[in-house]
Amino acid sequence: MERNYKLTVSYDGSRYYGWQVQPGKNTIQGKLQDVLGVLCGKEVLVIGAGRTDAGVHARAMTANVHMDTGLSEAEIRDYLNRYLPEDIAVSEVKIASDRFHARYNALTKTYRYTCFCGPVKSVFDRKYLLRLDAVPDVERMRRAAALLLGEHDFKSFCGNSHFKKSTVRRLDAIDIRLRRDYLTITCTGTGFLQNMVRILTGTLLEIGFGKREPEEIPAILAALDRTAAGYTVPPQGLCLIKVDY
Amino acid sequence: MERNYKLTVSYDGSRYYGWQVQPGKNTIQGKLQDVLGVLCGKEVLVIGAGRTDAGVHARAMTANVHMDTGLSEAEIRDYLNRYLPEDIAVSEVKIASDRFHARYNALTKTYRYTCFCGPVKSVFDRKYLLRLDAVPDVERMRRAAALLLGEHDFKSFCGNSHFKKSTVRRLDAIDIRLRRDYLTITCTGTGFLQNMVRILTGTLLEIGFGKREPEEIPAILAALDRTAAGYTVPPQGLCLIKVDY
Repeated sequence: MERNYKLTVSYDGSRYYGWQVQPGKNTIQGKLQDVLGVLCGKEVLVIGAGRTDAGVHARAMTANVHMDTGLSEAEIRDYLNRYLPEDIAVSEVKIASDRFHARYNALTKTYRYTCFCGPVKSVFDRKYLLRLDAVPDVERMRRAAALLLGEHDFKSFCGNSHFKKSTVRRLDAIDIRLRRDYLTITCTGTGFLQNMVRILTGTLLEIGFGKREPEEIPAILAALDRTAAGYTVPPQGLCLIKVDY
Repeated sequence: MERNYKLTVSYDGSRYYGWQVQPGKNTIQGKLQDVLGVLCGKEVLVIGAGRTDAGVHARAMTANVHMDTGLSEAEIRDYLNRYLPEDIAVSEVKIASDRFHARYNALTKTYRYTCFCGPVKSVFDRKYLLRLDAVPDVERMRRAAALLLGEHDFKSFCGNSHFKKSTVRRLDAIDIRLRRDYLTITCTGTGFLQNMVRILTGTLLEIGFGKREPEEIPAILAALDRTAAGYTVPPQGLCLIKVDY
């Protein structure tokens, strides 16, 4: 009997071209569809809550897939973990309502960007962070972050210049923490444009390092122009933490 | 002026043939000597507290090197971190007494072996642990560990069958912990034979899984024969935690 399954997936995105299937390229969605396709004996479509970029990681991406396997939830999970590469893991498989859609039903997503600003390289988690040469001023970053909260047109923070749909999004929280040598920027919102968290982070870092003022944020938003915002930090520091429904 | 420097080094050993220099192979000692050789304009010898095997990691290996650089301790540290590969970091450089020898003066070393025994793969630290299919009985392992403490001839736990010197060592502590899905076995002792921590761990795991009894330890030690002990667990779960002087 065909069921709609909700999957919770974690992955180290280092060697992938992002979530979304692309012909001839390694992608997370592609790997999941390959393994489940063999299990089902036919092609399946795995719908993710969002599309992470190349090199971006996930602690708990949510996806759904309609399929008929004859296996229990735990058996599907174990099958996936046996045949997926070692950098993709499925932590939970659960039967969902037939109408559950991982992308349309997502209320908020939480992304975290991690920087390391200690004097010595961090060896063991080096693939999951951005190294900074100095410690930015967190209070300045927090003042700027407060001006980004709420509903805005985030066109200035959209990395896709050909994006034709609405660029209005709602940012519910930006939590900035410095613990020992680690700086984390955690963003929760209704949805994120392409590269949005990375451009937000780059802009906040420029403010933290005194290259811009926190009070410039309203003008950056009002410009509706990518060149008004800061730089796009590299993907390896970014991780999708969770999706809420 | 030539000084004797004490270095504290951390590394992800995944892509190295161990600590010790071998012609034509990537080694930690080799990388350090290459970078410091350029700095000094002549060959230098970096003496490590011990030799970690291929694939074994270190959080704080200690080494010493006699050299004349004209740089301060922090400048040498920063130079090393700039030119070493991203999987080797030097956390401290300190001038030591001329007679300090990283190997001869080491009193104890602490190694930790990490296993993961959860139902789902661990994606982000997968290169630093051994996956187990089930949770071993920690109390049985602790009973066996207690019988290994103190001074013994550990010939049965020596991976090098051609080793001609004394195989007597003193084990001061074996701490076994299970926290969430992580099982760690932390050994402190005066010194360790080749593969010794990995064979100790393999033997303790066999006891934890009921394949051997804790009370077999004295007979395993008395056999003075490698085949009496358990299997050698793979290197990636092993990490040199610290060296005490």
